[in-house]
Amino acid sequence: MLIVQKYGGTSVGSLERIENVARRVAQAREEGKDLVVVVSAMSGETNKLIEYAHHFSKNPSRREMDILLSSGERVTAALLAIALQEMGHDAIAMTGRQAGIRTDSTHTYARIEEIRTDAIKQRIEEGKIVIVAGFQGINEHGEVTTLGRGGSDLSAVALAGALKADACEIYSDVEGIYTTDPRIEPRAKKLEHISYDEMLELSSLGAKVLQNRSVELAKKMGVTIIARSSFSDDPGTIISEEDESMEAVVVSGIALDKNQARVSLREVADRPGIAAEIFNKLAEEQINVDMIIQNASKDGTTNLGFTVPQSELERAKEAISQGFGEEIGGADYDENICKVSIVGVGMKSHSGIAAKAFSTLAENNINIEMISTSEIKISMVIDEKYGELAVRTLHEAYELDK
Amino acid sequence: MLIVQKYGGTSVGSLERIENVARRVAQAREEGKDLVVVVSAMSGETNKLIEYAHHFSKNPSRREMDILLSSGERVTAALLAIALQEMGHDAIAMTGRQAGIRTDSTHTYARIEEIRTDAIKQRIEEGKIVIVAGFQGINEHGEVTTLGRGGSDLSAVALAGALKADACEIYSDVEGIYTTDPRIEPRAKKLEHISYDEMLELSSLGAKVLQNRSVELAKKMGVTIIARSSFSDDPGTIISEEDESMEAVVVSGIALDKNQARVSLREVADRPGIAAEIFNKLAEEQINVDMIIQNASKDGTTNLGFTVPQSELERAKEAISQGFGEEIGGADYDENICKVSIVGVGMKSHSGIAAKAFSTLAENNINIEMISTSEIKISMVIDEKYGELAVRTLHEAYELDK
Repeated sequence: MLIVQKYGGTSVGSLERIENVARRVAQAREEGKDLVVVVSAMSGETNKLIEYAHHFSKNPSRREMDILLSSGERVTAALLAIALQEMGHDAIAMTGRQAGIRTDSTHTYARIEEIRTDAIKQRIEEGKIVIVAGFQGINEHGEVTTLGRGGSDLSAVALAGALKADACEIYSDVEGIYTTDPRIEPRAKKLEHISYDEMLELSSLGAKVLQNRSVELAKKMGVTIIARSSFSDDPGTIISEEDESMEAVVVSGIALDKNQARVSLREVADRPGIAAEIFNKLAEEQINVDMIIQNASKDGTTNLGFTVPQSELERAKEAISQGFGEEIGGADYDENICKVSIVGVGMKSHSGIAAKAFSTLAENNINIEMISTSEIKISMVIDEKYGELAVRTLHEAYELDK
Repeated sequence: MLIVQKYGGTSVGSLERIENVARRVAQAREEGKDLVVVVSAMSGETNKLIEYAHHFSKNPSRREMDILLSSGERVTAALLAIALQEMGHDAIAMTGRQAGIRTDSTHTYARIEEIRTDAIKQRIEEGKIVIVAGFQGINEHGEVTTLGRGGSDLSAVALAGALKADACEIYSDVEGIYTTDPRIEPRAKKLEHISYDEMLELSSLGAKVLQNRSVELAKKMGVTIIARSSFSDDPGTIISEEDESMEAVVVSGIALDKNQARVSLREVADRPGIAAEIFNKLAEEQINVDMIIQNASKDGTTNLGFTVPQSELERAKEAISQGFGEEIGGADYDENICKVSIVGVGMKSHSGIAAKAFSTLAENNINIEMISTSEIKISMVIDEKYGELAVRTLHEAYELDK
């Protein structure tokens, strides 16, 4: 059995923690597994290097940033290999280049294009534990590249896919994916199993565990991810294709996003193409629009509502006020909102899920300002101050604590 | 004009110092020079990484040490390139691999075998300042290697040789090579010019500036080194082939080595091969023998004297007492000695140099225990407590303060 393990910055944040990781790797080895272990930089190291670069430049060259930032993972990989060797295991450290990770040339946010697995496969066949510096690769010209935030997860998932590993274990300081944020609802339960799509919709719940890019890649490559903690023996949460057992669970989790602001445009000229123009303009300004709702038109105009990240609201205001003149009757903006989302693949085959959400909020006198639904998600915009209350009551209504 | 500059760990020991180096490089650039700049790791970084490794293992794998240790120079190279770019200069950072530095496979102490200069030359032709991470290369299998202590100097000298640069400027926190250690003789003067051979013989005076391996390589490749400080505008010391102006100077410098111990073997069986056996035995034990003196034999035995580093004396005693039984009549050891050396290429064409040294010491009642001479050096072993006095009086006798 071939397992790819990935240990994040917190898991390797000190020499003692690297030793702890070495013991875990050794244990898996002693259970007879073949292992490829991907490591991040020790926590704090990457931020330190970014600060160093910003001492010299607000906007440092991305090519040079890649040479700079790729150094941290190399340190961890070498140290972990040394620790394992000292425990009597045959381990070898490899840089991203040596591990055959080939990327495009988008420095600091490169995409993995290909993994040349020959070198790693040879080392595995020789019986070695292969330790790979995550987050990095080289492009076709041999230039060092890095994969952006969460890049070590991408390295691990891509390696697991290319090597057809049996699983990709992603270790952090969190035991897995929870039904909701345990800081909001202490009765939140860890999920045993969740589908890729649910994980993508619940990204805020998994933010500390792994990012959407990695989940998308895992889905594309059919890699089973196991999100676990390196500080406990909890089996973690399995993230994989949905199966029947998952569909039996109607709702998997509830996410709260307090970082949104609502934009409501009134009396928008109801002519073909107006919505496209507005959202193109926002896209040009690199504003990320999330929920979009358009009501049926009355008297030749329509109302258009959407949400944007709070930090982008000022730029959104500017883009709208400058761009559309009399075609928009009026606009109001509200930063004091939040978005509550209910996610579950079981929704596809169950009815009444949305109705339960609406009535649960109504019973608590929480007004719903916007609603948007997809096959496996119901999102509602409500007053920000009710966010936590909504999460807790919905968590109970769907019996997620059971 | 193409100049290779090398900045050591102290010169790039903080972000402010890297900025200072950037200003120096920019200035040289503005004077119209083409530049290849080799950098060390920020001072303390390499030692920190070594300590990390030793946390896990007393004897960490040298292959993994190379991946670990090569990271520090990459950081400095990237930061310096970023700093220069911010000043409006077109700079590019290159790792040892990208700079084409190919080595053998002796991890942590690799020898440079070849420099593939195509990539650097292309960058220079594009008008770029090339910043190279020193101390590192790759072997034929693409494995990361490092060059051992003083390795960045080797990178710089080898690059200067391969690129046929006009000079290789080695920057440290010392202004150049002095006639003797200024801590012993405050009137020591900085030398303007010194030959490779003198520099090799005076290595203790240049220990903080550059190591013998680099001087030997520079001699072999005909690279003119300029040893300078990155903290002053002093022109430094030029190290090159000897020329007539150098030969006019009889004595260039006086070195003191207090780290030696004397071994005297009495009544050594005077048969062919006995000396070879003794020194082979010491070599096997990896004991570095320095001065060797054998006196003419009397009554079928001979006396053999030599010096070894103090730290190796105990091992030398053991090797001798175990190995030779009755073939050696007796041995005595003295740790309280030191070696004073007078060096100068001018000695070749001048006579009376040695006589002056002996009489100067005699006038000060300093007994000479051992003497050894080469074409350009006279070394004398004396009582350790007279070391500094000998240096000062010889410095004055040869008018080195003039």
